[in-house]
Amino acid sequence: MPSIKAYGATSATDPLVPLTIERREVGPRDIQIEIKYSGICHSDLHTVRGEWGDRPYPLVPGHEIAGIVTAVGSEVTKHAVGDRVGVGCMVNSCRECVNCRRGQEQYCLGETVFTYGSVDRDGTITQGGYATHVVTDEAFVVRIPQGLPLDAAAPLLCAGITTYSPLRRFGAGPGKKVAVVGLGGLGHLGVKLAHAMGAEVTVLSQSLKKLDDGKKLGADRFYATSDPATFEQLAGEFDIVLNTVSAKLDLDAYLSLVASGGTMVSVGAPPEPLALNAFSLISMGRNYAGSMIGGIAETQEMLDFCGEHGVTAEIELIPADQINAAYERMLASDVRYRFVIDTATLG
Amino acid sequence: MPSIKAYGATSATDPLVPLTIERREVGPRDIQIEIKYSGICHSDLHTVRGEWGDRPYPLVPGHEIAGIVTAVGSEVTKHAVGDRVGVGCMVNSCRECVNCRRGQEQYCLGETVFTYGSVDRDGTITQGGYATHVVTDEAFVVRIPQGLPLDAAAPLLCAGITTYSPLRRFGAGPGKKVAVVGLGGLGHLGVKLAHAMGAEVTVLSQSLKKLDDGKKLGADRFYATSDPATFEQLAGEFDIVLNTVSAKLDLDAYLSLVASGGTMVSVGAPPEPLALNAFSLISMGRNYAGSMIGGIAETQEMLDFCGEHGVTAEIELIPADQINAAYERMLASDVRYRFVIDTATLG
Repeated sequence: MPSIKAYGATSATDPLVPLTIERREVGPRDIQIEIKYSGICHSDLHTVRGEWGDRPYPLVPGHEIAGIVTAVGSEVTKHAVGDRVGVGCMVNSCRECVNCRRGQEQYCLGETVFTYGSVDRDGTITQGGYATHVVTDEAFVVRIPQGLPLDAAAPLLCAGITTYSPLRRFGAGPGKKVAVVGLGGLGHLGVKLAHAMGAEVTVLSQSLKKLDDGKKLGADRFYATSDPATFEQLAGEFDIVLNTVSAKLDLDAYLSLVASGGTMVSVGAPPEPLALNAFSLISMGRNYAGSMIGGIAETQEMLDFCGEHGVTAEIELIPADQINAAYERMLASDVRYRFVIDTATLG
Repeated sequence: MPSIKAYGATSATDPLVPLTIERREVGPRDIQIEIKYSGICHSDLHTVRGEWGDRPYPLVPGHEIAGIVTAVGSEVTKHAVGDRVGVGCMVNSCRECVNCRRGQEQYCLGETVFTYGSVDRDGTITQGGYATHVVTDEAFVVRIPQGLPLDAAAPLLCAGITTYSPLRRFGAGPGKKVAVVGLGGLGHLGVKLAHAMGAEVTVLSQSLKKLDDGKKLGADRFYATSDPATFEQLAGEFDIVLNTVSAKLDLDAYLSLVASGGTMVSVGAPPEPLALNAFSLISMGRNYAGSMIGGIAETQEMLDFCGEHGVTAEIELIPADQINAAYERMLASDVRYRFVIDTATLG
């Protein structure tokens, strides 16, 4: 297809700028999508600024993509022109390894191809969703249920599945107590999803600043982690502690909140090692787990669940020329709770 | 009952010596046991030497107790005179908290009463199994199946349940790959149990010194962890890595051996914190878990399993006057694989 408009980085240090990029012609198994909305994830910022390793430039970030199918390849069976669809963090994988075969493409042993800044299996560099169109293999395109508005659904493609997958895996549901650490882009969806699953939900936030928001999002309880009494009061309380915070934290203190046999699961972490006293785990038979997004089938399951329960992100819709400002506000934690780009403003 | 002969410590620094101790009269729910054999666990040494905190002296260690019932209280229903029974690491708990109610007395929220050096619920100090008799509440006494010799069964009461419980919890069985780190008292039973459960078993030992032993115990494969190639070769290989080593180890290196969705579980650990890069967990959806012995019902299940599969410990039977020498040999890792005291030699 012809060149398309996008917004991206030309180096690790310069602000993002309008760009023109190429998308491949629609192959037999490809879906061409007119992108309507693209969420802004914290990892976009880390990646374009080279904080997670060197990347090729120009680089168009964005892996929370929602749009409409505008063309399909000759062998496509999963989607049709006019369908409401999404693309998340991955656009390809080996499809042959044990993990791909069991639907965990994010843990592909042959190497997951991420939505931007990755080398695709044809050798080209992937470019993300801050753009008017994308062409993606149908196997990595998911359906967005009718009831969900495309703008507020876009963040489900990363933030939604990242929190849904560990909540499901560790059994969030009626009779279970879930704590969500951090009430940001990930955390606010963690709260909504755990609540929709029927769990009792507690927010553990640095302060009580977002207390009212937390309750509106579905939290039953809300505590400030800056208050040491919180850790005494909630000792051994939770079946699941979902840690959405990437900052360095006191693992042993958070593990003390986990009930015997329960799990603390991190979906973000600082690059440096954390200190862990193994007796925090041994003394009460606890788990400390990690989780990265989720597989494609599970992403579809998550979207269907959100359609059924009316779960979407709380968003602030912005035009493309505010992307750099949005990055700065994101760094200052000044967003409730996800920026989403209206791609109609790209040109 | 009258005073009985025992062997124990009078201080943290002196060698163990023959002692005379009192056992309580047999209460309505008590079982009086003539101890035949008592295993020596590494934690006996840590505890009597005060390395795990101050303890009251004199202190009689021993929590791998096998013997014969010699008297029962008026309300006892579980055991009868003449029964072959065992007592493990616990002799009481609150029996009311959520963990006790679900059979996890080792995680009692009211406080587990351990077999020695603990304050029992009647205020007395518990004394362990290096003795001719013990009086224990029937709820904490388990049956030893007929097929198992009492001497080689004794270590199952601690080392057996400590390895059985996490293997079961994390699904060891046919089609699963289990690595056992460390081939000592715990590890050699981990190998036998995982093999009996039908898993493919790999030993990860510091050197290849115990290779022949490992194969005889049921290991399918055996690798030296001192060889860095081991970690490359076995990357992502195991559903379960059972870490029986209390020494400091490189958690990230061992976690790299775990398959996506799999678990490394520690049953021992150094007192100081370990460094952990959370991405070792996140990047492949791994778990790091801890486990401490097992509940009483599960201990019975483990003994029945061992009876069915003929699993017992490899032991070196010693008279009481060799206990101090055995401690020194244990410190030098010179034991294959568990010392067991013949209590007939107590006097």
